[in-house]
Amino acid sequence: MRIALDAMGGDHAPGPIVVGAVAAARKDPGISVVLVGDKAQVEPHLAGADDVRSRIELFHCTQVVTMEDSPIMAMRKKPDNSISRSWQMLAEKKVDAIVSAGNTGAMVAGGLRLKLFLPHVRRPGIATVMPTLQGPIVLLDVGANVSPKAEHLFHYGLMGAIFAKRILGKENPKIGLMNIGSEEAKGHDLAKETQTLFRKSSLKDSFAGNIEGRDIHKGVCDVVVTDGFVGNVVLKLCEGLFEFIMKVTGKELMTTLQTEKHLGQVALQNLVKRYDYHETGGAPLLGIDGIAIICHGSSGERAIENALHMAAKYARARLNEMIVQEIESNPNLVNDTAEAE
Amino acid sequence: MRIALDAMGGDHAPGPIVVGAVAAARKDPGISVVLVGDKAQVEPHLAGADDVRSRIELFHCTQVVTMEDSPIMAMRKKPDNSISRSWQMLAEKKVDAIVSAGNTGAMVAGGLRLKLFLPHVRRPGIATVMPTLQGPIVLLDVGANVSPKAEHLFHYGLMGAIFAKRILGKENPKIGLMNIGSEEAKGHDLAKETQTLFRKSSLKDSFAGNIEGRDIHKGVCDVVVTDGFVGNVVLKLCEGLFEFIMKVTGKELMTTLQTEKHLGQVALQNLVKRYDYHETGGAPLLGIDGIAIICHGSSGERAIENALHMAAKYARARLNEMIVQEIESNPNLVNDTAEAE
Repeated sequence: MRIALDAMGGDHAPGPIVVGAVAAARKDPGISVVLVGDKAQVEPHLAGADDVRSRIELFHCTQVVTMEDSPIMAMRKKPDNSISRSWQMLAEKKVDAIVSAGNTGAMVAGGLRLKLFLPHVRRPGIATVMPTLQGPIVLLDVGANVSPKAEHLFHYGLMGAIFAKRILGKENPKIGLMNIGSEEAKGHDLAKETQTLFRKSSLKDSFAGNIEGRDIHKGVCDVVVTDGFVGNVVLKLCEGLFEFIMKVTGKELMTTLQTEKHLGQVALQNLVKRYDYHETGGAPLLGIDGIAIICHGSSGERAIENALHMAAKYARARLNEMIVQEIESNPNLVNDTAEAE
Repeated sequence: MRIALDAMGGDHAPGPIVVGAVAAARKDPGISVVLVGDKAQVEPHLAGADDVRSRIELFHCTQVVTMEDSPIMAMRKKPDNSISRSWQMLAEKKVDAIVSAGNTGAMVAGGLRLKLFLPHVRRPGIATVMPTLQGPIVLLDVGANVSPKAEHLFHYGLMGAIFAKRILGKENPKIGLMNIGSEEAKGHDLAKETQTLFRKSSLKDSFAGNIEGRDIHKGVCDVVVTDGFVGNVVLKLCEGLFEFIMKVTGKELMTTLQTEKHLGQVALQNLVKRYDYHETGGAPLLGIDGIAIICHGSSGERAIENALHMAAKYARARLNEMIVQEIESNPNLVNDTAEAE
């Protein structure tokens, strides 16, 4: 299992990125990491990693896409950047997976540019796992495709269902469409068109119809499909609201509890640890021919280590083969997607 | 102050709706309520309200828009419904405000149908007050306009800023545009066009640019502008996520706390009370010539009482006069909106 890791991507690169790679290699002897970035900056952080040094390579490149760069401009003007180099390795099948905590737009643009898509898939989407009262579910797209067509959303439902089945272990995943009411006539044109696509497709029995914002965390669906704009707002809102509630809850507990204030703090720390976005590793870009994991810009060593394990897990689960197989084994689905074009 | 209250709207109508009206009339001697609905169903709930009976009228009508009704169809096929009757009273200036916990779409459609807009305003938007670490802010639109034009969003920013100033007491309210990144080039076409409108307008100094989902609860802006689809998802997601976090926090506290479990429960009850959507009363439809308050479908007597006080507060604050005055006193704004047409 060879994974290219963007050593220059993220707020804390390259130090914690390299440390995360070393930790993952130590934990999983099946993982080899190719650190993509400026050799002079990366190499010092490998001191003391002699035990796994044989499974950590360096791929030198001179440029970095910053968080402020326009993705498309950066791809053009910085051809030797660590994200493009990682994608090239994936396209040439030199690695099984790529991982980056860098500019999300550039990660998506890299895949679009090479058109490195699975057969029958026209636009990849970023999938993220969210906790609910019924266990984890998958929400997509959270930012790859801000103005999708109905058929893209249909593909997200299809891929999300396979993800829910193979990775989250849901036997008969239910797909919900993010909307502003449960009635069929609700929402904008995109929502109505997407509903029609699902209802006339072979996925109709898995399609649970509209889902409202308040239903997500109840876990009424295993897959929540939405456009990249709404999905991105949802994902980041959850992050911000969780932080807000933890702060006000902490304050409230400190004034209400008498002798067990410290235990109240322990409880909140447990919650923060359990639901911390840094612990989850990253979000896969589904629909790519290969594994591509996009990490939070603020990822530290722990998040990077988890993202590498996640990449290895997806590759081993043969997620992509399952997606293609499930589409192709079902002629209606292939027809659906062809019709939709 | 005369307020028409849709006695038939909401999951619990008419009982708790009528009880809420009586409570509001008792608390505020300046309030008169017109209960709009089926007399035979409404009247029994007025037993025991003789002390305020002189300020509570009944306006009989025979039909109800249900939550399942298509708003536009219902308006056409049920001409004697309580929402349309309320709007008619507002249009004829027989009341200063209307309040309903019924079908939100029908409440919006009622206003659109009569084109009962403030001068220079082309589409009303539902504004909702949200708690943040910096105190309350206003988010709009949360569901009146799911496919707005950039100029509608611009008007929402303008009206939201006046709301933040006059109702929330913010001296120089900052307006943020909901987007998926802070950089100017982020987002879909609507977001980019709206940014341009703000930046070339007289509101440019109040415009703080893009705001991400994670920033809302930090309180970095006093006004968050977005389309009715995203706003509705945000509002309901907050409701669902808050419930989720309260549940998992409760569980965690019950296993972590030893002798002060009851105090942990008290703390959570305080939080639920403080942030409960039922306590806030309702959300104003801004841009209407008059006051229109839309309540949560699950509103009980407490929510209805609060919504009536809110309606009285807005009417007394002369919010609409301020909006029109602030647009007209500033020729650039009137020009901006004319240009945008």
